[in-house]
Amino acid sequence: MGRNEELESLRDQVRRITDEIMRDVQKRLELAEQIGEIKSRLGIDVKDERVEQEIRVKVMALAGEIGMNEDFALRLLNILLEQSESVQALERQQPQKQTHLAVFMKAKQLETAGKKIIHMEVGEPDYSPPAIVGDSLSESFRLKRYHYTDTRGIPSLRDAIAKDAGLPEDNLIITPGGRFAVFSAMVALVKAGQEIIVIEPAWPAYKECANFIGAKTRVLKTRLEDSWTPNTTQLEDMINPATRMIVLNYPNNPTGKVLEKKTMDRILSIAKDHGLYLLSDEVYADYAFNSRFHSVLEYGYEKSIMVSSFSKRYAMTGFRVGYGIANKDVIAAMTKVQAIGITSVAEPMQHAALAAMAADYSQNVSLMKKRLGFVADKLRKMSLRFIEPEGAMYVYPEVPTLDDSTLVERLLGRGVAVAPGSGFGDSYKNFVRISACQPSEFLGRGLDIMATVLQESGR
Amino acid sequence: MGRNEELESLRDQVRRITDEIMRDVQKRLELAEQIGEIKSRLGIDVKDERVEQEIRVKVMALAGEIGMNEDFALRLLNILLEQSESVQALERQQPQKQTHLAVFMKAKQLETAGKKIIHMEVGEPDYSPPAIVGDSLSESFRLKRYHYTDTRGIPSLRDAIAKDAGLPEDNLIITPGGRFAVFSAMVALVKAGQEIIVIEPAWPAYKECANFIGAKTRVLKTRLEDSWTPNTTQLEDMINPATRMIVLNYPNNPTGKVLEKKTMDRILSIAKDHGLYLLSDEVYADYAFNSRFHSVLEYGYEKSIMVSSFSKRYAMTGFRVGYGIANKDVIAAMTKVQAIGITSVAEPMQHAALAAMAADYSQNVSLMKKRLGFVADKLRKMSLRFIEPEGAMYVYPEVPTLDDSTLVERLLGRGVAVAPGSGFGDSYKNFVRISACQPSEFLGRGLDIMATVLQESGR
Repeated sequence: MGRNEELESLRDQVRRITDEIMRDVQKRLELAEQIGEIKSRLGIDVKDERVEQEIRVKVMALAGEIGMNEDFALRLLNILLEQSESVQALERQQPQKQTHLAVFMKAKQLETAGKKIIHMEVGEPDYSPPAIVGDSLSESFRLKRYHYTDTRGIPSLRDAIAKDAGLPEDNLIITPGGRFAVFSAMVALVKAGQEIIVIEPAWPAYKECANFIGAKTRVLKTRLEDSWTPNTTQLEDMINPATRMIVLNYPNNPTGKVLEKKTMDRILSIAKDHGLYLLSDEVYADYAFNSRFHSVLEYGYEKSIMVSSFSKRYAMTGFRVGYGIANKDVIAAMTKVQAIGITSVAEPMQHAALAAMAADYSQNVSLMKKRLGFVADKLRKMSLRFIEPEGAMYVYPEVPTLDDSTLVERLLGRGVAVAPGSGFGDSYKNFVRISACQPSEFLGRGLDIMATVLQESGR
Repeated sequence: MGRNEELESLRDQVRRITDEIMRDVQKRLELAEQIGEIKSRLGIDVKDERVEQEIRVKVMALAGEIGMNEDFALRLLNILLEQSESVQALERQQPQKQTHLAVFMKAKQLETAGKKIIHMEVGEPDYSPPAIVGDSLSESFRLKRYHYTDTRGIPSLRDAIAKDAGLPEDNLIITPGGRFAVFSAMVALVKAGQEIIVIEPAWPAYKECANFIGAKTRVLKTRLEDSWTPNTTQLEDMINPATRMIVLNYPNNPTGKVLEKKTMDRILSIAKDHGLYLLSDEVYADYAFNSRFHSVLEYGYEKSIMVSSFSKRYAMTGFRVGYGIANKDVIAAMTKVQAIGITSVAEPMQHAALAAMAADYSQNVSLMKKRLGFVADKLRKMSLRFIEPEGAMYVYPEVPTLDDSTLVERLLGRGVAVAPGSGFGDSYKNFVRISACQPSEFLGRGLDIMATVLQESGR
């Protein structure tokens, strides 16, 4: 048989086997549909992590046996599982969730229509950036600071941050906000079908990024009863061959929690044992009110990514300057994503951030601490349960008598915006997030209205 | 049989069929490997578009027959094809390509080391933004323009651009540079395994974005002999069920081509006939030197996305402000991507862009036209072939005696940076891109050095 005939015969076999694969996959989907129907009748949740995990382990063993690349096997399996789930859940579409941003948009519309709103829903400080930032903006034009920069950021800003962190500047990238550092790290390190672990309640961006990639988010739920301390045994149990990253965010948005040192130690050792990336979003690190806070950088873990920003520390949200610190291969991969998406961060904004670094922000921190104390006092008088914030800019009380969306709507009707608890995780419908980014006078007025609404609801 | 037993039996079947699928997929990969070996011996390219296309058509037909979702079928098939290709090509890794950005980075390093460089490699105008932009920056701080904005941009800027375009502001999003408009449109509209068509030579960002998504780029090559006019019959032949988007960029980077009206008409009608998105990157629209240029917006095509920016028109590259215009569903989808990636564009930069809109930029255009004429004259004297630029900021001459990377290296050694032609497409190793973003005096000096280097190479 000539080479060309051999080629044709092999191609014939490929055609036949492709046909067979497609038919089997369709059969599999139909079986999944039947299972979905039965589950629906039995009132069982479509998603069954235990069954999925069992299949995953089996497929990995099979891959080993037949010599299939493990990454590829997992990717293929996750696509099958994902499609099955969407077939199963086809007629049970969930309503769009309300998040703090959705409430913010509604509040803005009400304001445009002439209504006065007390904003306790967004995490944007009401105080000003350091005055020196204004000077930097004013001289930007004269100094011709309006060009493309190195994708990783201007050398002077990278130097300054790297020096503060005691690291070489190869370990650093300047991003348009901490959000893009999270985004680019996840996109660079996690593939479709792989998994990340998020500890809830959590800033919704982590899950959004994972969904964007086609990665799967496994949620480790924490409880007010446990002071929001994650259960590290549960955490370790969630890890499987597809797990790629654990996301931390302490001081925490929305709970105000700072992790106990021994819990942080344990998470680090779990990440190491399983070779997982550890993304630590530390944008609230400056607002840590006890000495318990430890940056992931202190551990010198090779696969950690520390994210921070100028937004909260210096009240510079609108400048969109953040950064990521990681090993230089990770930074190189994040840089590629940044080059594809945005070329570089706006040059005048980078210089403004550099200028801010000379300013003292301790006043911001003491002001925030004072306000959070004020909010906590008010909530205690309302007999609500919560943990005293140990950091960040929020209090996250339980509102047992009302679900969050009802409370949020009623409050909006009376000119008060708060963030619904379920925006930070499905299990937190009986919580709201109160942001202390307003003067105490406004916060007091807003909380008095909230007390009235809760009283009226029969509490 | 009880519900629970039925469930168990169905799950058993799922397990068996999953096993079978995995084994068949592995068999398919092994067949692909054998085909790869034979091809390698016969000296045939691993990638065979014709065979792939045939499989794709067959699988789509099969999907229809067995009731499988077409999108899912394509996604699955593309993953199989992709993996086969990577198995086949395992030991034939291609070297990293040189692009204009890589040359820019090298040139910057040489400058840091004390060498003087004439920059003809980057598309960044050397003139200044309008003075009014400086005023806007100076008053940004006083006017407290440092907050998160609507994800789509500040209303005043959106109003102004929408009014200019004669469209409602729902059809518009402000992005961090035109690049992010391209990025977010592709990410929002094209899925992994789907295809986009790019006309080469082209700005590498389109292909980079497609790779990023896991989409496939089909390249329509154009030739200097045809004055870089794309062959629309070839274009239509490339379209298959997986095709999702055509990308246009006129005035063109790197060739300076502006499309003939009848070609543009024909492309529009092809896009319409096949229901394809048409992304038209028009960042050089202001630098169109003949009346032939027509924006995609003139066609009112429902599935078009027009991309533009403030970077080239007002020499505001470092401000990172661009925008996309499309139907409101597309804008909503792009907005979601932007919300996930960056929250919003830096507020002071948006106000600076708004300020710029009051300025006259006609001087920039006439200066660029004059310089391009100067470059063209010089190249003609060197007896190089090229088309006289009809727009944009570049000339793209053929350098038949040397491959581009050799020429680029030799020129860098003599203090001149130009962009290698192959950075805009694999087929253009005998071209370089000369950017006219420097005063004629420098351009003249750089081109004289290039003439010498070409002469020495035996031309």
